[in-house]
Amino acid sequence: MAKKNAFYAQSGGVTAVINASACGLIETARQHKDQIGKVYAGRNGIIGALTEDLIDTSKDTAKAIAALRHTPSGAFGSCRFKMKSLEENKLQYERLIEVFKAHNIGYFFYNGGGDSADTCLKVSQLSEKMGYPIQAVHVPKTVDNDLPITDNCPGFGSVAKYIAVSTLEATFDVASMAKTSTKVFVLEVMGRHAGWIAAAGGLASTADAEQPIVILFPEVAFNKEKFLGRVDELVKKFGYCTVVVSEGVQSADGKFLADQGLKDAFGHSQLGGVAPVVANIVREGLGLKYHWGVADYLQRAARHIASKSDVEQAYAMGKKAVEFALKGHNSVMPTIERVSNKPYKWKVGMAPLNKVANVEKMMPKNFITKDGFGITDKCREYLAPLIKGEDYPPYKDGLPLYVRLKNVAVPKKLGEFKI
Amino acid sequence: MAKKNAFYAQSGGVTAVINASACGLIETARQHKDQIGKVYAGRNGIIGALTEDLIDTSKDTAKAIAALRHTPSGAFGSCRFKMKSLEENKLQYERLIEVFKAHNIGYFFYNGGGDSADTCLKVSQLSEKMGYPIQAVHVPKTVDNDLPITDNCPGFGSVAKYIAVSTLEATFDVASMAKTSTKVFVLEVMGRHAGWIAAAGGLASTADAEQPIVILFPEVAFNKEKFLGRVDELVKKFGYCTVVVSEGVQSADGKFLADQGLKDAFGHSQLGGVAPVVANIVREGLGLKYHWGVADYLQRAARHIASKSDVEQAYAMGKKAVEFALKGHNSVMPTIERVSNKPYKWKVGMAPLNKVANVEKMMPKNFITKDGFGITDKCREYLAPLIKGEDYPPYKDGLPLYVRLKNVAVPKKLGEFKI
Repeated sequence: MAKKNAFYAQSGGVTAVINASACGLIETARQHKDQIGKVYAGRNGIIGALTEDLIDTSKDTAKAIAALRHTPSGAFGSCRFKMKSLEENKLQYERLIEVFKAHNIGYFFYNGGGDSADTCLKVSQLSEKMGYPIQAVHVPKTVDNDLPITDNCPGFGSVAKYIAVSTLEATFDVASMAKTSTKVFVLEVMGRHAGWIAAAGGLASTADAEQPIVILFPEVAFNKEKFLGRVDELVKKFGYCTVVVSEGVQSADGKFLADQGLKDAFGHSQLGGVAPVVANIVREGLGLKYHWGVADYLQRAARHIASKSDVEQAYAMGKKAVEFALKGHNSVMPTIERVSNKPYKWKVGMAPLNKVANVEKMMPKNFITKDGFGITDKCREYLAPLIKGEDYPPYKDGLPLYVRLKNVAVPKKLGEFKI
Repeated sequence: MAKKNAFYAQSGGVTAVINASACGLIETARQHKDQIGKVYAGRNGIIGALTEDLIDTSKDTAKAIAALRHTPSGAFGSCRFKMKSLEENKLQYERLIEVFKAHNIGYFFYNGGGDSADTCLKVSQLSEKMGYPIQAVHVPKTVDNDLPITDNCPGFGSVAKYIAVSTLEATFDVASMAKTSTKVFVLEVMGRHAGWIAAAGGLASTADAEQPIVILFPEVAFNKEKFLGRVDELVKKFGYCTVVVSEGVQSADGKFLADQGLKDAFGHSQLGGVAPVVANIVREGLGLKYHWGVADYLQRAARHIASKSDVEQAYAMGKKAVEFALKGHNSVMPTIERVSNKPYKWKVGMAPLNKVANVEKMMPKNFITKDGFGITDKCREYLAPLIKGEDYPPYKDGLPLYVRLKNVAVPKKLGEFKI
């Protein structure tokens, strides 16, 4: 194949390590200058391709690109944008081909979750369906850990580590305060559909040092009486407890617990989080003093406490994506295959994109304890290696040295395109 | 002075480094076994003294005590309990003397903030007012940074570092999402009366790398129009912004912004945080998509990202408290005196407790920018050294190795006492 340029873009919610994938991808592409010309990044994901808003990554130094490995967030901007099918919006695909042609792009790398895998799959079919030769490789990323086939998703391990560490720290805090003050701490974590992130809170309790933790999973319908019973039991035994609650927890009637129909003084409805709702349930049901926190973006941006496994895997996904493309693969995604737990060993596998796109991997039922409030040993065995190791960013004056790239635009060659 | 035992207790909200003070104090006491017998810790602060619930710290190994240096929270339990004056509740003071006598306690160390300094002051007067010879030294601790005389308070630097790092990380995140999704991230931080912690969010923006950050201080009456104007301005310039809001922000009429009179579907009032309130104001006023987080206990328990300056100072406060007592001082508190900013140098000073108790140090007016939404260079100069350096705890299997002491009770010699 003649030398072609590559397109790379980041999609969906960003993570602490998606830039590590970008780093692995760009560094590896730079090692193959005979086959890959330039890596053009899409500014704000696929939107950058559609609007011909490309970033010339070669304008950033090797040092800056290397710093992506320890910089959270999406360095080129991300987007929440799902392309329709070829039949529904052929114009967009024709535009993509126009842009790819104009910039001699023969490789398409898309870094995202399930929706993005679908976009990548559609692009991979351009070759067959519209006669434009392109190799599309998906680079997995999602804190939700819900991509199929791969053992785990880059981005998840670091959120899991953040939640495990934060749950441990907050539990130590509430333990100190319980005698005369707060007895229950409620931490809201991400996870609309699957309880992977909430499960990580369970890692704070270990065989060596049991911690009183109650987990509320989106997979388990919220039962107020059972919940209060469990909190009461733990507070009686330990004097305190921590509740880790998924944002997506629902009651038996399928309503989000967070949606309590709150109205402000003017009667306007207010969207609160689920943490204050759960905290109020504890106060009203048991009369216990509480505190609550909502980790929100902090959990997925927390590169300062990223998991070393996660960083290494994210980097490897970017690197392998390039290597797969250079070997002629199209419509695939590198995966993480677990080889062993103790010691933790993994290798990179490959999955066909049509088996990945739009498939959501839920948490196995046997990862949740029978009472619905904890994680099983099987779950612990799965999660533990993913939070292993620390990979601290460099610091200057007390702050992490995160990089902002120059993100120099590639001169446009085409007219405008409205999306 | 004949060899006496020491009493040590932790009081008020705990911090990431209050145990580092305990570590400094116990290790230093152990080096002076000729003068100090045992260090008895009060279980749950002064309550432990009143109820004769003492912990024999000598039952914990040197290794366990050393691990306190990197363990957040209060290892002996804290309390929120303010002793009344001698005139109002003489019984309590007589009880203290009874307990001190029974356990041969001649040194009293109390580790806390303003209220605790007041308790410590009262105990220091027992010698004079009730004829019981005791030396009372206060060990400063508070995330609120509101103790007078000392340049800063142990515990604050680590919260400040956590908030600065988290604000930086969340700002990177929202920057990535802004094109098609979230444009404003709101982070709620501690600070009922003073904006010290919120101010730390301002450190995320530096001369090298400006970040669009709006700070809402409790010192500045909330003005909705001005606030929306500032957010609008930053979003227009950068595409996004982060709002760091103190829990104690009030409107011009003196009401907490967090107290919006929210009612649930049953008409029960609900206490939410201030972050969702501010987020709603942004949505209603500017129609921008937002995310919000509430750091709550996570910020003050985050030993994993503690400031090295803070850990060293906390340790030094505990150590010096013992040395002051051994030199015969009573009714004093070690302080941190700033010697220079660049390089940051500090030394330990000494303050009389009657100048410390019940005095709240507010943030200087010239630390807040004229528009009320940012920090001045003067503030930055003050804050920057306090978040300097990292002091990571050791890890095992991905989690920090925080210690739980044995906390062996000292056999009781007296009857019960109701508090």
